[in-house]
Amino acid sequence: MLQAALASGTAHRRAVFELFPRRLPEGRRYGVVAGVGRALDAIERFTFDPEVVDVLREHGVVDEPTLEWLAGYRFDGDVWGYAEGETYFPYSPLMVVESTFAEAVLLETLLLSILNHDSAIASAASRMTWAAGDRPCIEMGSRRTHEEAAVAAARAAYIAGFVTTSNLAARQRYDVPTAGTSAHSFTLLHDTEKDAFTAQVTSLGHGTTLLVDTYDVAEAVRLGVEVAGPGLGAVRLDSGDLGVLAQQVRDQLDALGAHDTRIVVTSDLDEHAIAALAAAPVDGYGVGTSLVTGSGHPTCGFVYKLVSREGPDGEMVSVAKRSKDKISIGGRKYALRRRNARGVAEAEVVGIGEAPVDDGDDRALMVRLVEKGTVVGRESLETIRARHAASRAELPMKARQLSRGEPVIPTLHVDGHVDGPTDGQVS
Amino acid sequence: MLQAALASGTAHRRAVFELFPRRLPEGRRYGVVAGVGRALDAIERFTFDPEVVDVLREHGVVDEPTLEWLAGYRFDGDVWGYAEGETYFPYSPLMVVESTFAEAVLLETLLLSILNHDSAIASAASRMTWAAGDRPCIEMGSRRTHEEAAVAAARAAYIAGFVTTSNLAARQRYDVPTAGTSAHSFTLLHDTEKDAFTAQVTSLGHGTTLLVDTYDVAEAVRLGVEVAGPGLGAVRLDSGDLGVLAQQVRDQLDALGAHDTRIVVTSDLDEHAIAALAAAPVDGYGVGTSLVTGSGHPTCGFVYKLVSREGPDGEMVSVAKRSKDKISIGGRKYALRRRNARGVAEAEVVGIGEAPVDDGDDRALMVRLVEKGTVVGRESLETIRARHAASRAELPMKARQLSRGEPVIPTLHVDGHVDGPTDGQVS
Repeated sequence: MLQAALASGTAHRRAVFELFPRRLPEGRRYGVVAGVGRALDAIERFTFDPEVVDVLREHGVVDEPTLEWLAGYRFDGDVWGYAEGETYFPYSPLMVVESTFAEAVLLETLLLSILNHDSAIASAASRMTWAAGDRPCIEMGSRRTHEEAAVAAARAAYIAGFVTTSNLAARQRYDVPTAGTSAHSFTLLHDTEKDAFTAQVTSLGHGTTLLVDTYDVAEAVRLGVEVAGPGLGAVRLDSGDLGVLAQQVRDQLDALGAHDTRIVVTSDLDEHAIAALAAAPVDGYGVGTSLVTGSGHPTCGFVYKLVSREGPDGEMVSVAKRSKDKISIGGRKYALRRRNARGVAEAEVVGIGEAPVDDGDDRALMVRLVEKGTVVGRESLETIRARHAASRAELPMKARQLSRGEPVIPTLHVDGHVDGPTDGQVS
Repeated sequence: MLQAALASGTAHRRAVFELFPRRLPEGRRYGVVAGVGRALDAIERFTFDPEVVDVLREHGVVDEPTLEWLAGYRFDGDVWGYAEGETYFPYSPLMVVESTFAEAVLLETLLLSILNHDSAIASAASRMTWAAGDRPCIEMGSRRTHEEAAVAAARAAYIAGFVTTSNLAARQRYDVPTAGTSAHSFTLLHDTEKDAFTAQVTSLGHGTTLLVDTYDVAEAVRLGVEVAGPGLGAVRLDSGDLGVLAQQVRDQLDALGAHDTRIVVTSDLDEHAIAALAAAPVDGYGVGTSLVTGSGHPTCGFVYKLVSREGPDGEMVSVAKRSKDKISIGGRKYALRRRNARGVAEAEVVGIGEAPVDDGDDRALMVRLVEKGTVVGRESLETIRARHAASRAELPMKARQLSRGEPVIPTLHVDGHVDGPTDGQVS
C-alpha cells in the first residue's frame, strides 16, 4: 500500500487520520482512554533500523524506493487527542493524526495496538475500583496475559484506580507501586504451616499478609495470630465462598484481639464479585484474570480511519468509505464534554471540521500530543490517575451501575464548516 | 516469599512444579499447547541484571541477601513438558519443572504468561483453520491486541494452521510467512477508485488483492478487472453479508472471465462465521480480533503448582493444597495419549509418581525441554506446525465440532508409586 502510494506520488498528500470507537463494549456505560503515554513513547522510538530494512529487503516485502523511504522514516506530523485517563464514548475522536498519508498510515497498527489494549484494561479496571469504593484493588494478573501486555496492564490498572501491582517491571518502567504476595507453594514447601508462617513473619515482619487457605482456614488464622501476634498485617483468602469465609475470619480475628488485621480476598474476582462482597468484612481485593482480559472485553475495537486528505488542487477533502454496517464520518474532528451548571456530563459533542461551541460549563477534550514530530503531551502517571478520577466523578450517577446499559451520555455530531466536498461521507 | 525461604533455608529444597489446566475453556473440546519455544528462549534469558537489582534495592522490595542471590540467578534445573503444537486436556501436565524451590518458583509468572497467552491463541486458531478446511486463514489481528502480544499471536496462529500474518515482526523474529493488504484509506487517498487500483496494480502487479468495498462493490469489481485484467489475483470484501456478496462477486468475476481471481473475506470473522461461509465461494479468510483475543477465551487459566518437594530427611514429598473448588494433585506427573488400534485418541493418561504403561498404540507426551539449565527442546516452527496437524488429526471426529461440548477425551489419573507421604493430596 505504501509502496504503491509512493510510486504514484499520493503518499505525500497531507492526510488526517482519526482513531475512534464505533461503540462501547456491549452493555458498558463508559470507556477509559489509556495507553496515550506509551503511544507517545512508541511514536518517538518508531523508526526502521538497518536490520529491519534488511529483513524487508531479503524477503522482497517492498521495493527499493520504499526501503529507502522507510530507512529515513521519522514521524514529523502533529497528533491531537484525548488526554490519558479521560472517559470516552462512541465516536469520541480519541486521536487525530495530521501529517502526510505515508507518515500517518504507518502509525496505524502501533497506535491501535497500544490504545486498544490499554484502554480495554483501564475500562474494566475503572468499573472494579468504582465497585470497590474505598477498599483497595491490587493488580495481580500478570500470569494470565502475555508477559509484556502484563506490564502495560499494570500501568493501565493504576491509572484507573488500582493501588498496587505484583508486576515488578511496572515499577521499574512506570513507577507503579508494587506489592508482593505469598503463594500456596510457600506453605507447601515447609514441613508445617507453622514453619511457613514463622519463616514469613521472621523475614517480613508481623505486618505481612499470610495466605490462610492452604489447609484449614480457621486453624491457619489461629496459627497466624499465634506466630505474628495480634498486630498481624493481613490474611489472604483465595478459595471458597469468600463472603461467608470473610465474616468467619473477621469474627475469629476479632475474638483473638486482632482487630486491625485486614482481610484480603482473591480468586477470579471481577467487578460483579467485588460488588457482591460490598457487605462482607473485606479490606482489599486482589484481581487477576478478569482485569488483564478486560473483564469480557479484551480489546476496545478502536479503528484508525482516513477522514481528510489533500486533493489535486491542494485543498483538503473530507473522506469516508460507504458502508452500511461500519459507519465512518469524514472530516477533521474536535470534541468537548457538555456539562450542565452542576458540572455533570450531559453529552459528548463532536465537531466536524471545526470545534463545537462551549456552552459555558463545557470542557474541551482534545490536547496537543505531538507537535511537528516532537512529543509535547507527556504527563506523569499521577496526573493521569487524577484525571481519570475526576472525569469519572463528573459522569451521571448511573455510570457506576454494573448492569448492562447504554452509554451514559449521548454523542452529538455538530457539522460546522466542512473543509471541502464530503465525498462518501456518512452523517 | 523468596526472601523468607532464603532466610529459613527452605529455598534450596529440591522441588517439582507443574504447569497444568484445571479445565478447558467452557465448551471447548480440546486445547493446543503453544509458547513452548518462546518459554525456552525466556528461561535462557532470565537473569537479573544490575539495573534491575538496583531498582529492587532502591524500593526496598527485598533484603540484601535476596538481592545477592538474584544477581547470581540462572535456572540450572530440568524442565519436561508437552511438545509445542500438541493438543491438551484438563490436568495434562504441560510442564514439569525440577529444581530447587527458589530457582523454580521464579519461573512461575514467566512460564504462565507465555503459555497462557500463546495457547489461548493457538487453541482458537486451530478451531478456525479446521473450520476453514482447505481454504487459507490469514492472521491480521495485530491492531486489536498489545503490540508485543501481536507478534506472539502471529506465531501461535501459524502453529495452528494459519498460512500467513500481516505482522512483519513475526517474520523477522520467527520467520512466519507474511502477506500485506490494502486498506480503505488507500482508496480514499486517491481522487478516484480507478486511480487507487491503477496505482496498486502498477506497483504490485495484477496478482495483487484489491479491496472492493470502499464505495460500490459491483462497480469496484468491474473496475478491478478493467485495470488488472482477468488475471487479477484477488478481491477482498470487508463488510456486508459476506455469503451473499461473495456469490454475487463470484458470478460477476466469472462473467468477466476472471475465473481464477480469488475472493478473500474479512470483517470480524471467528470460527463460527468461517464455518457458516463453507458453502459460499470464498477462497480465503482474514481473521483479526477474534483470533488475537482467543475467540472468547483470551487466557487458558493454566496454573503452576508445587507438587513435590524435599522433606527434612532428604526424601521427596508429594504436596497439594486442600481446596474444594480448586483441585490440585500432588506428585510428579507423566503422561501419554492412549490410542486405539486405529490410532484414534481415547484418553489422556496421567501417571502420578511414575510413567503410565503404554498399551501398545499409545504415544508418550512429555519431552525433555531443559537439561541442567541448558535448553535441549528447541524445534523449528515447521516441526511444531506439523505436530499440531498430526495431533489434531488423531482426535475423535467430534473434536472438530464447534458447538459447545465436553473435552473430547477423558483424563485418567494412574496412581503409581508415589514418592513419599501424600500430605494434603487430593485424588
